[in-house]
Amino acid sequence: MLIREVRVTPVAFRDPPLLNAAGVHQPWALRTIVEVVTDEGITGLGETYGDLAHLEQVRAAAARLPGLDVYALHRIYRRVADVVGANIVTDMHGLTGSSSRVKTVDRVFAAFEVACLDIQGKAAGRPVADLLGGKVRDAVPYSAYLFYKWAGHPGKPEDRFGPALDPDGIVAQARLLIGEYGFRSIKLKGGVFPPEQEAEAIQALRDAFPGLPLRLDPNAAWTVETSIRVGRALDGVLEYLEDPTPGIDGMARVAAEVPMPLATNMCVVTPEHLPAAVERRPIGVLLIDHHYWGGLVRSAHIATLCATFGIELSMHSNSHLGISLAAMTHLAAATPAITHACDTHTPWQDGQDVVAPGALRFVDGAVPVPDGPGLGVELDRDALAVMHEQYERCGIRTRDDEGYMRSFDPSFSTRRGFW
Amino acid sequence: MLIREVRVTPVAFRDPPLLNAAGVHQPWALRTIVEVVTDEGITGLGETYGDLAHLEQVRAAAARLPGLDVYALHRIYRRVADVVGANIVTDMHGLTGSSSRVKTVDRVFAAFEVACLDIQGKAAGRPVADLLGGKVRDAVPYSAYLFYKWAGHPGKPEDRFGPALDPDGIVAQARLLIGEYGFRSIKLKGGVFPPEQEAEAIQALRDAFPGLPLRLDPNAAWTVETSIRVGRALDGVLEYLEDPTPGIDGMARVAAEVPMPLATNMCVVTPEHLPAAVERRPIGVLLIDHHYWGGLVRSAHIATLCATFGIELSMHSNSHLGISLAAMTHLAAATPAITHACDTHTPWQDGQDVVAPGALRFVDGAVPVPDGPGLGVELDRDALAVMHEQYERCGIRTRDDEGYMRSFDPSFSTRRGFW
Repeated sequence: MLIREVRVTPVAFRDPPLLNAAGVHQPWALRTIVEVVTDEGITGLGETYGDLAHLEQVRAAAARLPGLDVYALHRIYRRVADVVGANIVTDMHGLTGSSSRVKTVDRVFAAFEVACLDIQGKAAGRPVADLLGGKVRDAVPYSAYLFYKWAGHPGKPEDRFGPALDPDGIVAQARLLIGEYGFRSIKLKGGVFPPEQEAEAIQALRDAFPGLPLRLDPNAAWTVETSIRVGRALDGVLEYLEDPTPGIDGMARVAAEVPMPLATNMCVVTPEHLPAAVERRPIGVLLIDHHYWGGLVRSAHIATLCATFGIELSMHSNSHLGISLAAMTHLAAATPAITHACDTHTPWQDGQDVVAPGALRFVDGAVPVPDGPGLGVELDRDALAVMHEQYERCGIRTRDDEGYMRSFDPSFSTRRGFW
Repeated sequence: MLIREVRVTPVAFRDPPLLNAAGVHQPWALRTIVEVVTDEGITGLGETYGDLAHLEQVRAAAARLPGLDVYALHRIYRRVADVVGANIVTDMHGLTGSSSRVKTVDRVFAAFEVACLDIQGKAAGRPVADLLGGKVRDAVPYSAYLFYKWAGHPGKPEDRFGPALDPDGIVAQARLLIGEYGFRSIKLKGGVFPPEQEAEAIQALRDAFPGLPLRLDPNAAWTVETSIRVGRALDGVLEYLEDPTPGIDGMARVAAEVPMPLATNMCVVTPEHLPAAVERRPIGVLLIDHHYWGGLVRSAHIATLCATFGIELSMHSNSHLGISLAAMTHLAAATPAITHACDTHTPWQDGQDVVAPGALRFVDGAVPVPDGPGLGVELDRDALAVMHEQYERCGIRTRDDEGYMRSFDPSFSTRRGFW
């Protein structure tokens, strides 16, 4: 079953002013939609980052894939590696940790791998989860992903989520998201305000939602000392503390001194980091992300590795659309070791999507695994066209939370390891 | 695609008197053939150990599988684990290392997993290698697996392989196997004669086959001191030294003192051993074996783990038939990290098989990956019936190399860690 054509379409969708350690989300979030079409006319979908440097690598790889077999994933990987060559794509925001050649190849490959698995599933008449060993859970729990945020983008009307700049605002946001989606665990994106303020927000969430597991993610904005101090203060309150401080060494120092597990999607982000992660024990939980761990199958391999070494698993999310939500759901459903509720930005996408409605829904904070063949989602071509038009017009080509923040606060700089 | 029926058939085939540290092969080798039949009438094949304690677990599990989906491999694994319960199956010969509950479950599961992948491949019209990411090599190289051996079983005529009890005999055996199969690397099963004698045989092989990689496997018969002495004496001669001494600690002490990598299928034989294997570095090469590492997919996961930690891979073999050779070949073909020629006992099976001729052949010591759907082999029902009849008549129910050896030499006992 040979690849006949690969279509690559950058899209943009509206994104609220979500605050983080790198700055603030721009008005438009970028994604790249990949369609792989076979000689038998089956189309598979993939979705990945939309930054221009990454998009260029995806396009270059896409041009070299026709003629390869959709089952030849190892060969496709090598072809992608050939195309990437010595290029290393680095994110400006740095929110997914360091870059390397391996991580770049894994990132470019992942979108094609998902599309090929979508095709394999469609050809076999089976959901992608079945290609990964089958579901071990019928629905995948996600967490309410809370952000400090402005009321709206400066100069624009207030968005429907409203402001969240203090504990009350965060609790109100949690009530909104939980009310709409039914989430049963909560993650707060931190690194925005002084650590004690963010700890207060966590305490407010604990008081408001006594039964729900809580996480805090300052995106490595804190020093080791601050991380230890705040971690100890939140003893018994946090399910895990995510990336309080930069780097494996710093995280290991914190991990040795705080009562809860640390989690990461920043200091262990490529197979090259795993030996140090095993040796120095910086984390108790890895937030796997198939977008940069080389796709669904490689992520499943990494999950086995983590389970073997006593590292638990959750899942990381960047702003994404429904193709990725479907892929994440199939992976988590078929990976026994992913035992923590996963992250998703879906609420912030607020109904915008490139996939047709109906296949993906939240029930009590969990997404039932689509049971159609492949990913179980179909492209909405009209929506794709609209979002591509938005991409063309929005003028944003690279996610730059810091630059956007500086346009309002010229003194801003990312606080990584500073607080 | 639901499992409708699982047939389990023990078989026996003639085996020459191959010597090893545990004793000598009995006149009949045992295997268990598994046939999984779906509600759509597709049959998948698996093959595993034939020892009675193992067979009983396989039969018990087989009875609990109907109704499960052939894609639900995680659920099948859990079902098998439920059936195995607290039972631990231990091999009398001890040639594949220690036993545990996890290893027992992995062993029982593996045969069913291979059969389910065979069915998945047949349903998709694709070879099993394609379900594992596709071939990275079109043919899988195997090594000439040499054994010290008697001329024939005592009281029986000499077999066609003749005696091999000294370096000349070993070189002659190598010429025979290489002549017939074209092997391009050589493994000598040791642990039979004093270590210096076996080192002489290796030197004789080096002289006779100057270009071919050589391995020696004393099956943990040596002390640490002997292992270091012989390892150093074979500097530049061995590709790797396999299981010279028992246990991860002993192997790590040897590994630190000898120039070549150590390999194992004895001290690292289940995921539970991997943390120590990574921490203490007893080995440079893991001989993966899907029969006890939980099937093909789990073996592929373990291969990724090994590659991540700089452990190279080859493949282990016990006496087996063509279903296993096909499974081993698909796995090795689709696993980039398996870079060393694999082991196989195929020459000693000497044409006996339960699979119909034609699908499996050796070309220059390598088996071209069968390109038919699934494993690409078909059961020869007449051969299966004959071999089952042999099983019924042969009287052997458990492989017992030591007991058989003692029937000729009552003073014999396994030399593990002794020499």
